[in-house]
Amino acid sequence: MLMFVCKQGQPIRLKGFDMNHPATHAQGKPQAIARIRRQYPYNNVVMIGDGITDQEAVEATGGADIFICYGGVVERQNVASRSDWFVRSYDDLMRCLKRYKVAMVGSGAWACAAVRMVAQSTAEAAQSPASCFEPEVTMWVHEEKHSGRNLTEYINEHHENPVYLPGASLGENLIANNDLIETVRGADLIIFCAPHQFMHGICKQLAAAKVVNRGAKAISLTKGMRVRAEGPQLISQMVSRILGIDCSVLMGANIAGDIAREELSEAVIAYTSRDAGVLWQQLFQRPYFAINLLADVPGAEMCGTLKNIVAVGAGMGDGLGIGPNSKASILRQGLSEMRQFCKYISPSVRDDTFFESCGVADVIASCYGGRNRRVAEAWCQRRMAGDQLVSFDDLEKEMLNGQKLQGVLTSDEVQEILEARGWELNFPLFTTINRIIHGEVPPDMILRC
Amino acid sequence: MLMFVCKQGQPIRLKGFDMNHPATHAQGKPQAIARIRRQYPYNNVVMIGDGITDQEAVEATGGADIFICYGGVVERQNVASRSDWFVRSYDDLMRCLKRYKVAMVGSGAWACAAVRMVAQSTAEAAQSPASCFEPEVTMWVHEEKHSGRNLTEYINEHHENPVYLPGASLGENLIANNDLIETVRGADLIIFCAPHQFMHGICKQLAAAKVVNRGAKAISLTKGMRVRAEGPQLISQMVSRILGIDCSVLMGANIAGDIAREELSEAVIAYTSRDAGVLWQQLFQRPYFAINLLADVPGAEMCGTLKNIVAVGAGMGDGLGIGPNSKASILRQGLSEMRQFCKYISPSVRDDTFFESCGVADVIASCYGGRNRRVAEAWCQRRMAGDQLVSFDDLEKEMLNGQKLQGVLTSDEVQEILEARGWELNFPLFTTINRIIHGEVPPDMILRC
Repeated sequence: MLMFVCKQGQPIRLKGFDMNHPATHAQGKPQAIARIRRQYPYNNVVMIGDGITDQEAVEATGGADIFICYGGVVERQNVASRSDWFVRSYDDLMRCLKRYKVAMVGSGAWACAAVRMVAQSTAEAAQSPASCFEPEVTMWVHEEKHSGRNLTEYINEHHENPVYLPGASLGENLIANNDLIETVRGADLIIFCAPHQFMHGICKQLAAAKVVNRGAKAISLTKGMRVRAEGPQLISQMVSRILGIDCSVLMGANIAGDIAREELSEAVIAYTSRDAGVLWQQLFQRPYFAINLLADVPGAEMCGTLKNIVAVGAGMGDGLGIGPNSKASILRQGLSEMRQFCKYISPSVRDDTFFESCGVADVIASCYGGRNRRVAEAWCQRRMAGDQLVSFDDLEKEMLNGQKLQGVLTSDEVQEILEARGWELNFPLFTTINRIIHGEVPPDMILRC
Repeated sequence: MLMFVCKQGQPIRLKGFDMNHPATHAQGKPQAIARIRRQYPYNNVVMIGDGITDQEAVEATGGADIFICYGGVVERQNVASRSDWFVRSYDDLMRCLKRYKVAMVGSGAWACAAVRMVAQSTAEAAQSPASCFEPEVTMWVHEEKHSGRNLTEYINEHHENPVYLPGASLGENLIANNDLIETVRGADLIIFCAPHQFMHGICKQLAAAKVVNRGAKAISLTKGMRVRAEGPQLISQMVSRILGIDCSVLMGANIAGDIAREELSEAVIAYTSRDAGVLWQQLFQRPYFAINLLADVPGAEMCGTLKNIVAVGAGMGDGLGIGPNSKASILRQGLSEMRQFCKYISPSVRDDTFFESCGVADVIASCYGGRNRRVAEAWCQRRMAGDQLVSFDDLEKEMLNGQKLQGVLTSDEVQEILEARGWELNFPLFTTINRIIHGEVPPDMILRC
């Protein structure tokens, strides 16, 4: 708002004030604040200054809510005495801003790859005094032995999970803890990434221990759903219901190992509260990990869940040695049935969701990479070679090194819903995959449905 | 309508008539015909019979339009004399039914794989006297030399196109012809499957020669569009406009070689007239080739066209050695931009179309198989290895054995539209692919758009 004139060869000279700027006239500051309130959805506006007009801006109707007197340049007693808070340094100001404490529940491959990004973000943000995240991130690890030592100890010493994501540095600011309750205690942002069959028990434990802050926010990276007589319950719904907190979801075409190698990838965060969505985006977004925000939680979450069934089907196709046309038709049919299932269960699900990373991209990535595809391929090859005894359980143990195979479990859960509601004929691919899994029809029926 | 009684140990005995059936009482036959007219959209109903009430059914209001007297069982002079036509044999009847003559314009890999299915269908149908197709199918072949002989002669002798689809028998009922006009003369069903840059000239030639029957129907398998100052013109629109006939399109996840090996595949036929769609479905459907009907011609056709650009992008990604996550994100972004482009150009395009074989499945098949991907991968590898002179034209000649690379041409055409309308920023993937093709940005920008 100050105007300077610079004539060739002459020093810069104050010419006057831009008299159109609201701060240059009486009541200009309250007007500026009113304008800010109109343009942005802020609930509280804090005025920081050292002059009497700064202080007066709090007293006007529609003005600021709080006045902080800053004495770092000049200290005016009459202003300071009427302020809500008097500070002499910038750091004092910054320290009063809320910093969110982040906890991760889960320590599998995807949990480790995800928490690695989060720990990078919080460490990076901590270099700015305005960071809204605590640099330290806690992670609950289901304790097991590795090379004769506790896995948590190994992780805290080497900053790496040698069992589920070997070779990837998780960050020195990541603290592993084998106590679920202590990991989550005091956290403001809770990330759930445990296998879905354990999620109900985890939520119940946390609720019983009363460690989850009111006002904490959750995000679920877990794929799967809970089948109940009254209908399926999504993990985000379960978290919200049991813990009484907002729950977003992060879903996308994310193969853990690739993300850990910082291959360019993308995901969506679907939110109920947009503020929460934006906050989670700040936490997860990395130069190699792009995030779109989406207002469709059930759509994104069901996509992430159902695509594991399609990946099992694609793996069966690969086991049969099919070509790109046939495989593409399995993926297409799978995506169509995912869309149909979503719309049956939750009619508000939007078509846009299927064009996002959590939809078509996740189906493709899981059907060309991913462990469900890999195990189903091996299973199918062994079945076709005459080994009628090989089971998905065996192969899970043999090939996945303790990781869980979500696709087979999800197939059973979804089939329970399809059967209960008489929808099987409308979902020929899902139904055929389930029948192949249970040996009711031969694997090559995948091509005939 | 006859009722029989069978008592244990007794011969079957006529009991009476089902008196509710319209044919058992006076004026019952005209009533039955009226019911048929209500239930089906037939324009003409032909009554065939040998009795006086059969003949009378033509004279009643709303009755049949034509009466054919059949004398194969009993010959009644009073009935025969009042008939429109008198026949003694079933074959005479069948021979009067219209049989459609089919012509294929094009002889590349996909044209050969497609005409092979058509020739199988017409040969198979010809075994039934009720077939609506002439068994013989003609194919226009752009003449060239193969092993010192004319390609048409080779095809007609060996029933195989050794240049573009070696190893696949096209059927003895397929007749190759190097004269476009003679190939199409008298055809009722014309299939267009020539590279899109030649389609305008072909249509103009056919129109000038006046060989296309009024009432003939066309279907386009060609991918591409014609860019004009007033906006893009789809091939189906061009055919309709220049030849004045109905034009459907067949699009889908179809790699020619796989279809020729009868790998299970699927496609859509998008129609303007549903009758035409059903007829084309009869002609193309095979046990290994499933066809869905769709009422969205521009959507299906633009999908088939635009996916070639995405396949070029996917090939570039493969050339850079990216993993499934990154590749899935190229495909996803590609599908999103395809959808957006379709909706900008033709707002009536439906979301459903993208879930069909012509949408997501074709994108996947082309981005994992297909020649656009293959050539773009090689181009990118050579560029990254420092060969700044390699061009798509060179590689087309080197790798495609005379086949045309549609993706690069389509990219230029689409980019012309994007530039003319100022849409480039809304299509970052399409635009980046085009800039990489022209060396304006390095190939790894494909991952940064």
